[in-house]
Amino acid sequence: MHQHDHARLERIGMPEAVLCGTKTVDQVRAIAVELASSSNGPRLLTRLGDEQLDALPQAVLDRLDDDRTSLTAFLDGTLPERSGTVAVVAAGTSDASVATEAARTLRFSGVHCELIVDVGVAGLWRLEARLDEIRSADIVIAVAGMDAALVSVLGGLVAAPVVAVPTSVGYGVAAGGTAALHSALASCAQGVTVVNIDNGFGAACAAVRMLSLVGGGR
Amino acid sequence: MHQHDHARLERIGMPEAVLCGTKTVDQVRAIAVELASSSNGPRLLTRLGDEQLDALPQAVLDRLDDDRTSLTAFLDGTLPERSGTVAVVAAGTSDASVATEAARTLRFSGVHCELIVDVGVAGLWRLEARLDEIRSADIVIAVAGMDAALVSVLGGLVAAPVVAVPTSVGYGVAAGGTAALHSALASCAQGVTVVNIDNGFGAACAAVRMLSLVGGGR
Amino acid sequence: MHQHDHARLERIGMPEAVLCGTKTVDQVRAIAVELASSSNGPRLLTRLGDEQLDALPQAVLDRLDDDRTSLTAFLDGTLPERSGTVAVVAAGTSDASVATEAARTLRFSGVHCELIVDVGVAGLWRLEARLDEIRSADIVIAVAGMDAALVSVLGGLVAAPVVAVPTSVGYGVAAGGTAALHSALASCAQGVTVVNIDNGFGAACAAVRMLSLVGGGR
Amino acid sequence: MHQHDHARLERIGMPEAVLCGTKTVDQVRAIAVELASSSNGPRLLTRLGDEQLDALPQAVLDRLDDDRTSLTAFLDGTLPERSGTVAVVAAGTSDASVATEAARTLRFSGVHCELIVDVGVAGLWRLEARLDEIRSADIVIAVAGMDAALVSVLGGLVAAPVVAVPTSVGYGVAAGGTAALHSALASCAQGVTVVNIDNGFGAACAAVRMLSLVGGGR
Amino acid sequence: MHQHDHARLERIGMPEAVLCGTKTVDQVRAIAVELASSSNGPRLLTRLGDEQLDALPQAVLDRLDDDRTSLTAFLDGTLPERSGTVAVVAAGTSDASVATEAARTLRFSGVHCELIVDVGVAGLWRLEARLDEIRSADIVIAVAGMDAALVSVLGGLVAAPVVAVPTSVGYGVAAGGTAALHSALASCAQGVTVVNIDNGFGAACAAVRMLSLVGGGR
Amino acid sequence: MHQHDHARLERIGMPEAVLCGTKTVDQVRAIAVELASSSNGPRLLTRLGDEQLDALPQAVLDRLDDDRTSLTAFLDGTLPERSGTVAVVAAGTSDASVATEAARTLRFSGVHCELIVDVGVAGLWRLEARLDEIRSADIVIAVAGMDAALVSVLGGLVAAPVVAVPTSVGYGVAAGGTAALHSALASCAQGVTVVNIDNGFGAACAAVRMLSLVGGGR
Amino acid sequence: MHQHDHARLERIGMPEAVLCGTKTVDQVRAIAVELASSSNGPRLLTRLGDEQLDALPQAVLDRLDDDRTSLTAFLDGTLPERSGTVAVVAAGTSDASVATEAARTLRFSGVHCELIVDVGVAGLWRLEARLDEIRSADIVIAVAGMDAALVSVLGGLVAAPVVAVPTSVGYGVAAGGTAALHSALASCAQGVTVVNIDNGFGAACAAVRMLSLVGGGR
Amino acid sequence: MHQHDHARLERIGMPEAVLCGTKTVDQVRAIAVELASSSNGPRLLTRLGDEQLDALPQAVLDRLDDDRTSLTAFLDGTLPERSGTVAVVAAGTSDASVATEAARTLRFSGVHCELIVDVGVAGLWRLEARLDEIRSADIVIAVAGMDAALVSVLGGLVAAPVVAVPTSVGYGVAAGGTAALHSALASCAQGVTVVNIDNGFGAACAAVRMLSLVGGGR
Repeated sequence: MHQHDHARLERIGMPEAVLCGTKTVDQVRAIAVELASSSNGPRLLTRLGDEQLDALPQAVLDRLDDDRTSLTAFLDGTLPERSGTVAVVAAGTSDASVATEAARTLRFSGVHCELIVDVGVAGLWRLEARLDEIRSADIVIAVAGMDAALVSVLGGLVAAPVVAVPTSVGYGVAAGGTAALHSALASCAQGVTVVNIDNGFGAACAAVRMLSLVGGGR
Repeated sequence: MHQHDHARLERIGMPEAVLCGTKTVDQVRAIAVELASSSNGPRLLTRLGDEQLDALPQAVLDRLDDDRTSLTAFLDGTLPERSGTVAVVAAGTSDASVATEAARTLRFSGVHCELIVDVGVAGLWRLEARLDEIRSADIVIAVAGMDAALVSVLGGLVAAPVVAVPTSVGYGVAAGGTAALHSALASCAQGVTVVNIDNGFGAACAAVRMLSLVGGGR
Repeated sequence: MHQHDHARLERIGMPEAVLCGTKTVDQVRAIAVELASSSNGPRLLTRLGDEQLDALPQAVLDRLDDDRTSLTAFLDGTLPERSGTVAVVAAGTSDASVATEAARTLRFSGVHCELIVDVGVAGLWRLEARLDEIRSADIVIAVAGMDAALVSVLGGLVAAPVVAVPTSVGYGVAAGGTAALHSALASCAQGVTVVNIDNGFGAACAAVRMLSLVGGGR
Repeated sequence: MHQHDHARLERIGMPEAVLCGTKTVDQVRAIAVELASSSNGPRLLTRLGDEQLDALPQAVLDRLDDDRTSLTAFLDGTLPERSGTVAVVAAGTSDASVATEAARTLRFSGVHCELIVDVGVAGLWRLEARLDEIRSADIVIAVAGMDAALVSVLGGLVAAPVVAVPTSVGYGVAAGGTAALHSALASCAQGVTVVNIDNGFGAACAAVRMLSLVGGGR
Repeated sequence: MHQHDHARLERIGMPEAVLCGTKTVDQVRAIAVELASSSNGPRLLTRLGDEQLDALPQAVLDRLDDDRTSLTAFLDGTLPERSGTVAVVAAGTSDASVATEAARTLRFSGVHCELIVDVGVAGLWRLEARLDEIRSADIVIAVAGMDAALVSVLGGLVAAPVVAVPTSVGYGVAAGGTAALHSALASCAQGVTVVNIDNGFGAACAAVRMLSLVGGGR
Repeated sequence: MHQHDHARLERIGMPEAVLCGTKTVDQVRAIAVELASSSNGPRLLTRLGDEQLDALPQAVLDRLDDDRTSLTAFLDGTLPERSGTVAVVAAGTSDASVATEAARTLRFSGVHCELIVDVGVAGLWRLEARLDEIRSADIVIAVAGMDAALVSVLGGLVAAPVVAVPTSVGYGVAAGGTAALHSALASCAQGVTVVNIDNGFGAACAAVRMLSLVGGGR
Repeated sequence: MHQHDHARLERIGMPEAVLCGTKTVDQVRAIAVELASSSNGPRLLTRLGDEQLDALPQAVLDRLDDDRTSLTAFLDGTLPERSGTVAVVAAGTSDASVATEAARTLRFSGVHCELIVDVGVAGLWRLEARLDEIRSADIVIAVAGMDAALVSVLGGLVAAPVVAVPTSVGYGVAAGGTAALHSALASCAQGVTVVNIDNGFGAACAAVRMLSLVGGGR
Repeated sequence: MHQHDHARLERIGMPEAVLCGTKTVDQVRAIAVELASSSNGPRLLTRLGDEQLDALPQAVLDRLDDDRTSLTAFLDGTLPERSGTVAVVAAGTSDASVATEAARTLRFSGVHCELIVDVGVAGLWRLEARLDEIRSADIVIAVAGMDAALVSVLGGLVAAPVVAVPTSVGYGVAAGGTAALHSALASCAQGVTVVNIDNGFGAACAAVRMLSLVGGGR
């Protein structure tokens, strides 16, 4: 039986999310039914596969705000709005699902965000055209696969916290995302931080932690 | 001839630091002399080896605040004080040099920090005894090698931003720090971010970026 | 023709098990039929896929105790009961199939075990709530993927032998289980031992070897 | 300042050891002096390099039982004797330092052990000649580098718990010990467990945990 | 258009074989038709998938001796018989397809061989029972996955050339066969040689090269 | 005895160079003496260590143009001048030795080149300030370690051939240069080519091959 | 919404291509429709899967020149012809799809090319028979998997620029193409450059950059 | 105490050699003294370092035939002559120490061998000039680092058994020899076998095993 960490919201300011991608269809349905019956406020499901979604009972589906690009779903709405804005900046169209996972997690967490796609550095003018918009955000999430050069360029251009999400997009040495991960970790731009490959959810959670600083820390 | 990025302070809130570890003795001396003559305010040198330090001219040494545990040196003092506090938490004695690099970089950047060492999770009570102190900080930097289990435990206990610095301390599968890096990236605690192995400097820079949010973002 | 190691039970206290996962449907059926006809006492099949199960003759199926969560099956019952108890502790729901493989192998071997799931260290209170139960066991099997931080925390809290089973659950750097494996091997808790990724069967066999010590060794 | 885990002996039956290999000469000296002054019973130092040893004050040296093959030292004697015996079996002469680290850790822990060297499987008769001796032990620690074939052969011949210590001995694909580690983890002998490369200390600690089962568990 | 190396038989004593596994269905069909029309003597096809086989024209199929365990096929019979015998020794049932690829390649090359399966070292008596048979062969091909311990044990027991074929059988660290490959390369038995993972064909070709020495070299 | 490939100059337009880094002091001296006595025109020595240099006879030294930054030496001058210019662009001071190896190889080959250092993308304005100069070259060699983001940015800004030389400069995931290599290979800028890590010599040779196209190919 | 880099043609002499392999069916259709409506001249689509192709609207299909061997398609024809010729040389039939991707990209770019297949070095005479043809080209693209020995042999025989494309063809250590990539990067033939595994497109783009040198550079 | 495998000569036709490289100075001296006193016929020591050599007692040195290029030494002469010849073919000067280890092991084993150096494939004519000589040998040992292309070229040109020894010579992706190893294992020439990186000794032992076939097997 699943033992949910209901106190997490109080402890760290975010509820436990359900990562469906590593669970069976039966496990996801059982957890979703349990969460739906316990009425503990809004919940986020991530990497919810089509088959897992289809297996949910109608009563759960009725309370679900689902998005097939990011494979995320909100159960019983979203958390209250918070101060601060986040720019989610993605290098290419292929990074859209990860970028949207970050954006949806932010929306679930009550955070306003802008999604800016197709600004890879092979065409630097595209990034420069959006730079003012990016600089107006409190936090920047940079989503990029392949060489992840976007991360370093952004890190050198903005003063805000930059959280890099390497993506598994690519082939050959870029397959799986390790090349992008290592490029982001080795970034020549100082003070950039990194989350696991394809972890748009984690980058958004990091942003939520940081936004607790807005308006004065503890 | 070295081409220093003097505008970096204005652009991203931190001056360019000099990473000496990848440079020759001659290159470090030349850069230090050039910086000393250009009078552009305080500068930070990191991974300054003993041989590199000894080769600096006395005129530069006189203006240097050097620390041999962290291999950092401040040229012409530190930046003005900033709001906010950071807790640098290290799993073991062996992580001290990396943790001190983070602490010194914060001090250089005008940020108050607490250094808390020897709180590895093999003796969980040690961490619990310092938890209130850690929770009172705006940002937590978690420094750990080997299994880096400290990162996940901390991430589950505090709501503040947690930046993990995996260290290269260890042998066998832990040698070089990849095991710690992967453990930190795969952390089951949501919203933890990570910097390169042994990159105490980078974690501190990330904290400086985040502290710009204190008292209201942009 | 398969050449079964019938003397293994006498030599090392456990019969040879049949690892079906690396065999074809035809090979598994042939081995199962041969074992069923040779009447050498209870036998364990592991990683028995659905297609392999469906291809078994009814005469074999009638003598099979099958479990689809762990993909294990007992042919002709279990071994006699042994002294000692084992706690199988799993970090998350996603680790259930591996944890159940360990639990079923123990049950096959005549060993009493408790299965404790969803005690990952991101919510430390969950583990602490079950600690007395865990400490009452003679041996602890810790099943965890991702950062495997559970292994180190458990290893620091209990005096009993701890056998870690890293799982392949996860994505990015955690995919395939190497991050969990390295984390477990590098554990800062002394005296923890490790088996191959996802090898719940092997951890249970290790526990069986250890339980031969209960009541005085040789 | 070092924060020693003095309660570890009560909690898990073994005191915290000092892994000197990852510490500076100054750090080791400071910890040794602190331990020597706190009078908390016998202590074990591992991977104590020659330079670190030479830097210890005479007052500490006088209370030290040092061994240069294993680089271990006992401060203030050993723990009380325990029931049970352990066979430490090493494939070749080159594995002697790791095997001796295991044997010395056992002796420190009050456990009787036999050290059996040069029984690699390229000359199988050597192992067979010592098999009765090995089978008379409660626990077997198998130390092997290169292909670590000794681990599988031993695991198929004895019923006792077998803890494998892969060693970093070797060159080419064997350099660093990963080949031996993977071979041991993938062992075709069921129920063998593994510790980190070169971790003779950890294998001995695992044996100590297991010996708590002798004479009836909890 | 495929450019076949028709002179290879004269140059190195073996005709060029067609590795179908890396080719499309269309490519395999085109090459087979071309070979069938050129009448250059017997030809070997390896890793011929079911779909590729089914797409061959009936006129080609009529001249094909196909085997679905090894996925090999002979076009227009086999080469003339040669002196010498080879023992193909496989650790487990799961290695059967690779072992059979070696045996079939030998049969195609006119070499007599014995196939000996299920002699893994976890049950050493099984190997010892077949040892006289193995020692009577001119060359031994050892096929093993996981820890590949069979390679070292065989290499220490027989004086004949031993060619190891690591297999990709296994999971966790053994998945893909790198653990077995490294174990075989690092074998403590001197003079063992190794071919690529799962390359039963290559091991047989190596044996054919060696058999040219029987009855006096050049 | 060394068997020099004297015909290489005619065959591929460049003489064989002597890579000293993988040779012993004795081997380098013997080869240098042999080359000096055979009078076959200018020769290039690369990675000539200090100890190797010091061991050369005075008669050879007298004919040597040596450079200690790049560890290259010309024996008997340089090749005739060729048309075309190359820009060698390096991200940071730490890449200077590799960049200089490329520049010196070009000079040896009779090619005019510009060396442009410290234009890493963390300060994008530095690169933009030199862009006209870079765009005026026929070929660009981009030398960068860490994230090698310079490669992608340059590749997107210039139309000329871009040859990337990843460097081993860096620590953590960047150590050894694999992160930079993978970043360069995965570059989002189309048509960038790559040579081995730290292979400034190879990049220059590639440029020489390309310059044969200037003024009309074959 | 996709933000196409329309200025790339002017900036670097080639338009942005659409790499379909990392995009969803919906994303590819949207981009193709957008490109078709914007009338910006010829466009290249690469790695266009069958399902993606089938989902394109008939209006787009009518303007498409598609090739299923290389999975490339030209939208609205090709670029104007350029001077210079390229030889695309592939080791085996299995490399045909990658070689054809290179050849089609060249044709799209207005470059004349010869495709030469099945000249692997196991039958050296095949390569020698085509050598004059290869030497008559301005640039050589060498496509090879497995050991990629073709790259070194070619690099030693021709003076023209050689761009190596390692392919993912192969199994065991050759699976995925890393062995071929490393072999090409470590090539003993000086001045060979390399692109990412299977990146026939990239090699062709590199050739296009180089051909800008024909007839005099800048 | 060292337990030598004195029966190995009878069992596999070669005595146990002493691999000194992984042993301490004291261990080597003790083993050498023991061997010298036991009078069991000729013995081979490999990877005997200068310091280890210098520490041997004069009585042992007097009976030693030592070679500093290969770091091998014969104690009490060599084994009786055997039929058959071996060609040891090395790509470059840098491979000389490994090639000489193979040649010296053959000489110790009573086998006639030819050493042919500097025939790397970047200058194919050098290999072709020696081909008749190579083809006259019964067995070919191919020693090559970097891309190991020599292995494939040789394997395609000779019918005799080819044993490849990849060497650790090289830098960047070639450092450590894994690139050469993988290239040799993936060789497109059929029937080539491989030993561990730098294992000249092992290749020679493999040749000795094969030469037992000359004049009729068993």
